[in-house]
Amino acid sequence: MSSVVASSSSPKPHFLQRRAVEFHETDAAGLVHFTNILRWMEGAELAYLQEREVPVFAAESVKSSGWPRVAVSAEFVAPLRFGDQVETRLWVDKIGQSSIAYRFEIWRVNGRGAPRLSATGTITAVYVTRLKGKLGPATIPAVIKKKIK
Amino acid sequence: MSSVVASSSSPKPHFLQRRAVEFHETDAAGLVHFTNILRWMEGAELAYLQEREVPVFAAESVKSSGWPRVAVSAEFVAPLRFGDQVETRLWVDKIGQSSIAYRFEIWRVNGRGAPRLSATGTITAVYVTRLKGKLGPATIPAVIKKKIK
Amino acid sequence: MSSVVASSSSPKPHFLQRRAVEFHETDAAGLVHFTNILRWMEGAELAYLQEREVPVFAAESVKSSGWPRVAVSAEFVAPLRFGDQVETRLWVDKIGQSSIAYRFEIWRVNGRGAPRLSATGTITAVYVTRLKGKLGPATIPAVIKKKIK
Amino acid sequence: MSSVVASSSSPKPHFLQRRAVEFHETDAAGLVHFTNILRWMEGAELAYLQEREVPVFAAESVKSSGWPRVAVSAEFVAPLRFGDQVETRLWVDKIGQSSIAYRFEIWRVNGRGAPRLSATGTITAVYVTRLKGKLGPATIPAVIKKKIK
Repeated sequence: MSSVVASSSSPKPHFLQRRAVEFHETDAAGLVHFTNILRWMEGAELAYLQEREVPVFAAESVKSSGWPRVAVSAEFVAPLRFGDQVETRLWVDKIGQSSIAYRFEIWRVNGRGAPRLSATGTITAVYVTRLKGKLGPATIPAVIKKKIK
Repeated sequence: MSSVVASSSSPKPHFLQRRAVEFHETDAAGLVHFTNILRWMEGAELAYLQEREVPVFAAESVKSSGWPRVAVSAEFVAPLRFGDQVETRLWVDKIGQSSIAYRFEIWRVNGRGAPRLSATGTITAVYVTRLKGKLGPATIPAVIKKKIK
Repeated sequence: MSSVVASSSSPKPHFLQRRAVEFHETDAAGLVHFTNILRWMEGAELAYLQEREVPVFAAESVKSSGWPRVAVSAEFVAPLRFGDQVETRLWVDKIGQSSIAYRFEIWRVNGRGAPRLSATGTITAVYVTRLKGKLGPATIPAVIKKKIK
Repeated sequence: MSSVVASSSSPKPHFLQRRAVEFHETDAAGLVHFTNILRWMEGAELAYLQEREVPVFAAESVKSSGWPRVAVSAEFVAPLRFGDQVETRLWVDKIGQSSIAYRFEIWRVNGRGAPRLSATGTITAVYVTRLKGKLGPATIPAVIKKKIK
């Protein structure tokens, strides 16, 4: 599978997050529902920003800002089940004037056996700030860009 | 089962809402995850208030208000599966100075066969308004009480 | 926005589903969390198949089958809030040997004003059946293909 | 608040689990949606059983078993927000012939300041096994009881 090849040759992730599959994340097919895998990707993204002290969500402050998603995608390579341990690997693919493109890989990392790629995905988030009472896209401040790269 | 008896002798519900079980609401046991049943109860509560033109959630208005939950409970009588049709039945049990106690029944109402009770539950919600920048419990206005009863 | 143009020139959807935004589907930014929009897309897909009497999920039958997702994508054009009514529009883009590619548009269709495009997306699902105890991709039976097209 | 008093005088929990509030767990009121707090309680319950090597969910094995919920309750004492760290404390309150009653407390344990009680709750789960193709309540085996107490 090409994404496995890409992964093993890809550079070290910019951020890692481990979690256990929770029962409510599964569905009647016995597998993790795909939307929860996208929630893990976002979870890694926000934890990555928090680790670098980039404001993630500041709704009630005077200078509120946020990172709404403008596009997401995912491919599901191998199923995940309750009891599995997973690792979300994050790369910052590109920082534009007002948006960041992230790339993700979800690996099953159970004790038994080698890690197995389960899903890949992307999230593009745009930086917004409140101007005259309305949130809208804004240039990512240099101080934030420096923290991310 | 006593709750079935109680139900058939109970007066007409104050509000009804029908929905189909969605696939993402099931879990790996093949059944609807219990937390989704509580979401249906809240869904019926808010639809009931909206139907009566009671403000449900007004975060951005000057006079913001809301109905945070202070207590919930549920008993699960019979399982629900993907493909089932369900009816949420709502009763206003009690209106206090600043809170409302709702009672719910979830019935499976598939075409085939008689309705079957699947779950019962309660939600107690408190009326809050913003005072000096902070949301806190407030007396339910007479105009709202009149709409509910 | 080009996707709006595409939409207005696009042929009639193969399936429509309306729903109201539920409170638990929103997040602290005050908007519908993007993963719930993907759940609506899947909801429309499964309702479409059920309407055409295509088996959607038959876990416990002898001849179990299903439609796991292999790829999804979405673009978010305009935010949705609690209280909004939405319409999910579905098109079958392509039926392959063992997969179906769906395309979706999510429109806000509140009473007030003209419908507004909120999101677009795609889901590619693969047909699987149980062979020797294991679910795996299979050729979509002609009887199912006929129901879909 | 009496539950705080009860908590501070209550014996050491049988199990603890920490987690960070995730963005998708919040709602448009800016707070964690109450159903996610119930998911944390179940999460602690299942992690507790797994730690003690009690089979939690064995759908596909010959001797399948599980722990469906028959009753849950919760009281919400203080709100939780994105960015908060929470600790779920679990007590086994009572083991019956075929059921276990758990009691929970959710504490906010952010770096800043003293822990604060956010919610309390209960889950009663019944032990089921497959008999003649149907899952039904069964006596909890002595080997499992010994692991729990």
